[in-house]
Amino acid sequence: MMMVVVAYDVNTEEPAGRRRLRLVAKACMKFGQRVQNSIFECLISTSDLLILRQQLLDIIDDSKDSLRFYNMGAKYSGKIEQYGVERHLPADSVMII
Amino acid sequence: MMMVVVAYDVNTEEPAGRRRLRLVAKACMKFGQRVQNSIFECLISTSDLLILRQQLLDIIDDSKDSLRFYNMGAKYSGKIEQYGVERHLPADSVMII
Repeated sequence: MMMVVVAYDVNTEEPAGRRRLRLVAKACMKFGQRVQNSIFECLISTSDLLILRQQLLDIIDDSKDSLRFYNMGAKYSGKIEQYGVERHLPADSVMII
Repeated sequence: MMMVVVAYDVNTEEPAGRRRLRLVAKACMKFGQRVQNSIFECLISTSDLLILRQQLLDIIDDSKDSLRFYNMGAKYSGKIEQYGVERHLPADSVMII
């Protein structure tokens, strides 16, 4: 298992963008948690990462959105620092911004 | 030098939030680049990371904002994947969302 951070940048002013963000969150939540509005931390196996990546690529609009994966590896403990509020966002919410 | 990903979650509906995001971006841009609206990739030394962290902690409102650091280490090549549009956001811009 490894920690993969998924960062998703979408224009949520459009309903279609909000819908894509909800779908991205829902897919990621199967493997991890939402830690910021568009950041998901997924503890995941190599084979599940293949599945998640394909699901996300099917969801995003690659002419409009940006999707980045950061593979923190298996020994990710101590490599993640959090300051300020801890967000506990449900998968299907979009923070109003 | 190591790659540190800075993820910053702020409510940009408020002018003060937009100002904080601009200041966070400006601080991070001294060490790296903005790859998404609120994601910065900083190639940075240990001593500069201390400076950057303190600068960011001075900027953020820790009762409202979330700031996360992901330390990808020195061998970060191959651990970052990008899909969709590559954003080249200037440090002082706030994407209108």
